Amino acid sequence: MSLIYVINGPNLNLLGKRQPHIYGDETLVDVEAGCRRVASELGHEIRFHQSNREYEIIDWIHEAREDASGIVINPAAFTHTSVAILDALNTFEPPVIEVHISNVYKREPFRHHSFVSQRADGVIAGLGTEGYQLAVRSIATLIRATTR
Amino acid sequence: MSLIYVINGPNLNLLGKRQPHIYGDETLVDVEAGCRRVASELGHEIRFHQSNREYEIIDWIHEAREDASGIVINPAAFTHTSVAILDALNTFEPPVIEVHISNVYKREPFRHHSFVSQRADGVIAGLGTEGYQLAVRSIATLIRATTR
Amino acid sequence: MSLIYVINGPNLNLLGKRQPHIYGDETLVDVEAGCRRVASELGHEIRFHQSNREYEIIDWIHEAREDASGIVINPAAFTHTSVAILDALNTFEPPVIEVHISNVYKREPFRHHSFVSQRADGVIAGLGTEGYQLAVRSIATLIRATTR
Amino acid sequence: MSLIYVINGPNLNLLGKRQPHIYGDETLVDVEAGCRRVASELGHEIRFHQSNREYEIIDWIHEAREDASGIVINPAAFTHTSVAILDALNTFEPPVIEVHISNVYKREPFRHHSFVSQRADGVIAGLGTEGYQLAVRSIATLIRATTR
Amino acid sequence: MSLIYVINGPNLNLLGKRQPHIYGDETLVDVEAGCRRVASELGHEIRFHQSNREYEIIDWIHEAREDASGIVINPAAFTHTSVAILDALNTFEPPVIEVHISNVYKREPFRHHSFVSQRADGVIAGLGTEGYQLAVRSIATLIRATTR
Amino acid sequence: MSLIYVINGPNLNLLGKRQPHIYGDETLVDVEAGCRRVASELGHEIRFHQSNREYEIIDWIHEAREDASGIVINPAAFTHTSVAILDALNTFEPPVIEVHISNVYKREPFRHHSFVSQRADGVIAGLGTEGYQLAVRSIATLIRATTR
Amino acid sequence: MSLIYVINGPNLNLLGKRQPHIYGDETLVDVEAGCRRVASELGHEIRFHQSNREYEIIDWIHEAREDASGIVINPAAFTHTSVAILDALNTFEPPVIEVHISNVYKREPFRHHSFVSQRADGVIAGLGTEGYQLAVRSIATLIRATTR
Amino acid sequence: MSLIYVINGPNLNLLGKRQPHIYGDETLVDVEAGCRRVASELGHEIRFHQSNREYEIIDWIHEAREDASGIVINPAAFTHTSVAILDALNTFEPPVIEVHISNVYKREPFRHHSFVSQRADGVIAGLGTEGYQLAVRSIATLIRATTR
Amino acid sequence: MSLIYVINGPNLNLLGKRQPHIYGDETLVDVEAGCRRVASELGHEIRFHQSNREYEIIDWIHEAREDASGIVINPAAFTHTSVAILDALNTFEPPVIEVHISNVYKREPFRHHSFVSQRADGVIAGLGTEGYQLAVRSIATLIRATTR
Amino acid sequence: MSLIYVINGPNLNLLGKRQPHIYGDETLVDVEAGCRRVASELGHEIRFHQSNREYEIIDWIHEAREDASGIVINPAAFTHTSVAILDALNTFEPPVIEVHISNVYKREPFRHHSFVSQRADGVIAGLGTEGYQLAVRSIATLIRATTR
Amino acid sequence: MSLIYVINGPNLNLLGKRQPHIYGDETLVDVEAGCRRVASELGHEIRFHQSNREYEIIDWIHEAREDASGIVINPAAFTHTSVAILDALNTFEPPVIEVHISNVYKREPFRHHSFVSQRADGVIAGLGTEGYQLAVRSIATLIRATTR
Amino acid sequence: MSLIYVINGPNLNLLGKRQPHIYGDETLVDVEAGCRRVASELGHEIRFHQSNREYEIIDWIHEAREDASGIVINPAAFTHTSVAILDALNTFEPPVIEVHISNVYKREPFRHHSFVSQRADGVIAGLGTEGYQLAVRSIATLIRATTR
Repeated sequence: MSLIYVINGPNLNLLGKRQPHIYGDETLVDVEAGCRRVASELGHEIRFHQSNREYEIIDWIHEAREDASGIVINPAAFTHTSVAILDALNTFEPPVIEVHISNVYKREPFRHHSFVSQRADGVIAGLGTEGYQLAVRSIATLIRATTR
Repeated sequence: MSLIYVINGPNLNLLGKRQPHIYGDETLVDVEAGCRRVASELGHEIRFHQSNREYEIIDWIHEAREDASGIVINPAAFTHTSVAILDALNTFEPPVIEVHISNVYKREPFRHHSFVSQRADGVIAGLGTEGYQLAVRSIATLIRATTR
Repeated sequence: MSLIYVINGPNLNLLGKRQPHIYGDETLVDVEAGCRRVASELGHEIRFHQSNREYEIIDWIHEAREDASGIVINPAAFTHTSVAILDALNTFEPPVIEVHISNVYKREPFRHHSFVSQRADGVIAGLGTEGYQLAVRSIATLIRATTR
Repeated sequence: MSLIYVINGPNLNLLGKRQPHIYGDETLVDVEAGCRRVASELGHEIRFHQSNREYEIIDWIHEAREDASGIVINPAAFTHTSVAILDALNTFEPPVIEVHISNVYKREPFRHHSFVSQRADGVIAGLGTEGYQLAVRSIATLIRATTR
Repeated sequence: MSLIYVINGPNLNLLGKRQPHIYGDETLVDVEAGCRRVASELGHEIRFHQSNREYEIIDWIHEAREDASGIVINPAAFTHTSVAILDALNTFEPPVIEVHISNVYKREPFRHHSFVSQRADGVIAGLGTEGYQLAVRSIATLIRATTR
Repeated sequence: MSLIYVINGPNLNLLGKRQPHIYGDETLVDVEAGCRRVASELGHEIRFHQSNREYEIIDWIHEAREDASGIVINPAAFTHTSVAILDALNTFEPPVIEVHISNVYKREPFRHHSFVSQRADGVIAGLGTEGYQLAVRSIATLIRATTR
Repeated sequence: MSLIYVINGPNLNLLGKRQPHIYGDETLVDVEAGCRRVASELGHEIRFHQSNREYEIIDWIHEAREDASGIVINPAAFTHTSVAILDALNTFEPPVIEVHISNVYKREPFRHHSFVSQRADGVIAGLGTEGYQLAVRSIATLIRATTR
Repeated sequence: MSLIYVINGPNLNLLGKRQPHIYGDETLVDVEAGCRRVASELGHEIRFHQSNREYEIIDWIHEAREDASGIVINPAAFTHTSVAILDALNTFEPPVIEVHISNVYKREPFRHHSFVSQRADGVIAGLGTEGYQLAVRSIATLIRATTR
Repeated sequence: MSLIYVINGPNLNLLGKRQPHIYGDETLVDVEAGCRRVASELGHEIRFHQSNREYEIIDWIHEAREDASGIVINPAAFTHTSVAILDALNTFEPPVIEVHISNVYKREPFRHHSFVSQRADGVIAGLGTEGYQLAVRSIATLIRATTR
Repeated sequence: MSLIYVINGPNLNLLGKRQPHIYGDETLVDVEAGCRRVASELGHEIRFHQSNREYEIIDWIHEAREDASGIVINPAAFTHTSVAILDALNTFEPPVIEVHISNVYKREPFRHHSFVSQRADGVIAGLGTEGYQLAVRSIATLIRATTR
Repeated sequence: MSLIYVINGPNLNLLGKRQPHIYGDETLVDVEAGCRRVASELGHEIRFHQSNREYEIIDWIHEAREDASGIVINPAAFTHTSVAILDALNTFEPPVIEVHISNVYKREPFRHHSFVSQRADGVIAGLGTEGYQLAVRSIATLIRATTR
Repeated sequence: MSLIYVINGPNLNLLGKRQPHIYGDETLVDVEAGCRRVASELGHEIRFHQSNREYEIIDWIHEAREDASGIVINPAAFTHTSVAILDALNTFEPPVIEVHISNVYKREPFRHHSFVSQRADGVIAGLGTEGYQLAVRSIATLIRATTR
């Protein structure tokens, strides 16, 4: 039974409590529950993290190198600014899926570019919090494919 | 039982027969089968199209205005060049999800910009042909949400 | 009694049925009637076309080389993307007027550039469907001027 | 019987006396006569101005706030440089139509951008001095539409 | 008792009478009163000007070289287009503070660049008409500092 | 008696000890004292913070959502690079004022763009450490206006 | 005896009938004859196509995957706009040579960029209709080289 | 004995009184005297103007159309911003020479572009106030050449 | 029997000895032999040059003004950087053909722009060393055409 | 015996354990040993740090202001994104040398720009982990030069 | 009696023999004679050079460091491409004047930028070959001013 | 005992004699001596060159292909402009190190880009003339590594 990291970037601790017209009204606790449910259906375990600290996200990615079969990451604002997270992901070989709750490609221009996309295997954007469950479902498929 | 259009752009008729390192080895027939299976699980019907002709894609979108509850579209090369498809989608009110088999954001720069993303509710890229099934699953959720 | 082509680009078949806050509520049938009325006042005949197909528009321009004294064209989405239509118009010597129903210069930046404007004698934008009648009126003047 | 301002920018006092291959050979007096003729047909009065002074144009727009039902403006060189005229027009609520005698979109690149277009309801370019009459005709329609 | 010029650019004569959602509902007379009140508290006199004419603003700056200890300037639209006002300010040595009623940095991109900021000691934007009083307060401090 | 957060970004702990030709010679302790004095005059309390850590600034903004009536923020270097702070401020509804000690608009080009300005109600730059007191004075006005 | 496709893009049906100062006075029939003559000298057969329809060009490239040893293509206006033709050529493995009758690199800037050049083995421009014969001659050499 | 206009733009009334490290210490009176001396040596008369008003400069150029054989112009700040002065010069057929006291090409980037250079026959920059005398000397040569 | 110059730029002396995956394995001696063979078939003589020195290339072009009927030039690295060679070619009136062994349009972006293309009649790229023979063949045609 | 700080940015804790084709196979412990060896030869002491936390790097630079004679810094990913580290270095007066293990100038474009280079005295890139020893050797020379 | 170098760049040996509509019909011998005449009037000697070789120009500038009081340079094509000539001029302290026969600012965009202008004291363009005489006259004035 | 080329670009013959605030006061003879000393310590021989001629530098690189184990190159001004030197270095397989005496990354923007860096293994900038010795030391290490 393999382990999937789900890592969330800055301000996502407020999910469901702010700007519901952009981000919906589910909280991060709901997201975590949804991820666990899908993962367990598919025989995977979830390690779920959120931080406003870039270095914690880097540290978790380093840690994932030891024990994870895949990473689902919503880097939030760090998507557009963090080369350090990209570099950390570049040290991680199993599958990576990038998730955004809103469709970042139709928001402000500075949200159209993602450093993380240069490493991610797949990207899911604009599907609300359900995007996480799809990402878990999809990373399970990628794990199966790469470990065959 | 509502209807979902799945529309595929140019060159996708060759799927599985060309550049498997980019696009994998499933054919469009496999993709169609996968979409139907997921849709029928979720109580939806699929109308599945592929064309190398921009106008056929526009015509299908116009047609979808009459009878569809959502569109899943992989505009392929037209993603980056067709304002006409964007304008057609702008006349369509139910949910739209854009799918790309490869992660277009790490390919040539001209593949980073999508006209269709300016209208799509969600975007899925890089998850291979499984991206279609996730898109169907996700549009079903959006249809439920918007028709409640 | 000379002939004027009025050529309409993609999605204009839906005119009056979509986004009335941008395009108003007259249909293309109304537009055609208006054009005919003005043309006949001024002693001209109208050949009125709409297509979602770039090649049909090119073919009509080629055909116009045989029998038309002027072209009024609303290339819609093709305005911004079609070098082929520009090249076709470059083979046509009589007057050409470009019409846009909305004021494209205050919409999204990608709508500010027109390939067709590099050939058109005149441009009318933002005057709603009345723009067509003004274009017909104006091309009649240009025809008179160039055939004197 | 409502009042329409027709405002002309710098160097247009020389119209008909300079560069006839670009601007034709009608003078501004001819243009004024044409505007009055069309306006009176349609039951409107014209106040016709020309200035090489940006501030006079601003002052006339301020004045128009008191007594005009619409403005037809050919800002000439100020089209491309005057944020102040744009700001003045932003304080004016009735319809505004921007006119250019030549097709500015196929001249030097610095003539392709218009600050005024960001406020104008409609734009007419390249139809020679007849563009003014079409503008008057068209603003009359807009006035009717907005005062209904 | 030293003299401070407060100079206002084009269209500010309409303050309080136009676009109150952007500029609030105080008039320029109110602004002048507020400036005088703060200035007199701090032992300064105000000379208050508004013009739609770039040259008058230049002339006042030249005049200020003779008798002013500081300039508070809201160049309005000229902020973004006038090198001539920048050059005039470059001939003036005492403190200069630039004021904008709205936060220009979150409006249209062409409002993000200011020629005047290349000379101004300080910039205040987005604080409504109160920005003027803060500017007077602040220039008083700068005058004290530079004349010590 | 309502609470105002004053939040300072990286390197400001060295204020008064470094580059006095750019930043002056007041220390952050002096700044804090000045803010408290003005705030107490106006019936407000100050919570004053400085950090070199982006996440602490984010956390304080989240905390401010619970108990603050306004935020004065000098994001220092993070002004130009932190989408995460912008996103945090986007979750905060009361007034926000951005302060810069130096006139960032006449320093290196990378200092001309501020992510925070896209959310801030007002911006004060180049007025030295006095800019903080003006910001407190001004946010008090905004608080009064919005809570009326 | 192997097969070479010669594919021509939009408006080339008018070759020799329009803008002879740019394109010369040979017609497409002459071009075809020249290609056949050179090909037959070199032991190859020609399949010669022209279309104003992007999809037909795509379809011919797909068809060429079955039976052609090389493609000579003059994509005309589609050179600069069609990612779909590039993608089609990317599915084709034998040699491809791109031909332009005029020297596109000294015409308008939008003609300097070619999507097709990103796939073509060789490019010939500005040599008039003789460019086709050189292309046939050259592709014969490439076919010999790659099939050795 | 023919007439040469020497036209000076904004802030040049302060010449010799400001920023002598950039502009030297001669006044505009000295410049005028120098121009008259050289002109009279060469059998020409000078009409010498300075204005901070763009429209006066335009008016003088229009006036020059009646009676001048050439224009020497230092447009100062208007160099970089005035399309209206360029358009006025475009209506003037005899020789035009543009003068700048400082070498504008090594100052701020916005001073590197001149609208006036697109019409001027010659440009002299960085030679201090002597540049004017060289310009007069040179325009005399051009007048001789064009009137031969 | 007329003379054709074939001029080769820097590093081409190493042809066939370096980077064969880009440039093939023919040497410049082979190229020269091929050019002579084709030229003599067509009744022309070849003067064949290579230099790493920009000035020698300029001098040869000047010399060609005296005795050549055409120039075939592979400017190699100077293609992208030498305005001086362009200017030299601008003094030469007979036909000029530019050759590149590799398809420069799909290599590094700085190789996409050619100063020489702004003067060349035709351009051949990516056809390996055979490109030279095609160029000789083609220039012979152009010479015939222009001397008819 | 003076002190040199050697500061390492994010992900360098994994040095030698990841992407050896880019970064080689020495670990950070090896780097530290090499630095100490060279420093002690030259009579200097090393304080060696690595962090994934931007603020720790800032804090160490602040601390270095108290006791260091020079800083050798490999800011890793922060090179390209951290204005805060640049600002911290701007408060530090002794010599600073920037080191990169790989030649960043031939990797992705976003790695070509360094904020830190705007402050560093010297830059060493692409010399692998030996770059550190050269940097220590070189900073020793700079320290000698500046403390003479 | 001091020495002035007059240095001419590539292709100027053909002056008067090529493109007379751009460069006039005087030869470089005429230019030299003109320079000597003016110089001798003003008590200076001329050393006159032309080369198509960048290094000769650099060498002459180095040589001028020994014995010249000023340099007049027309770098021709090297104006736009040679950092090496700029660097050589940066080692030369007396006055430098840059001359262009044509008005480079209204030719192709790549002729608008000059590396040499970043060092030159003055620039003269578009005054034909007379520009040289004005440059000699002007450098004599600068020499007088700097040696006073 | 292997051979290292040290190649110096234009104007470096003046080293120590010009702009000592940028380049220090050591001459090229001193640099050569330093290089020889370090090389001989490490068992290498030096061939030391300087030229203002691009072609000599190219020729030396070609020559180095025969007998050198590495190249240290300070291309000076050619760094930023010479594709020909880059192409020459691309034909050379042993290690290459690029040296700049000053920190080019904080000088004028046109000095930030290096063609040579696209081939160099390592880059050293801003360490003064000592940079050469470090480069020799470092290339010795690279030679050892690649010849093991």
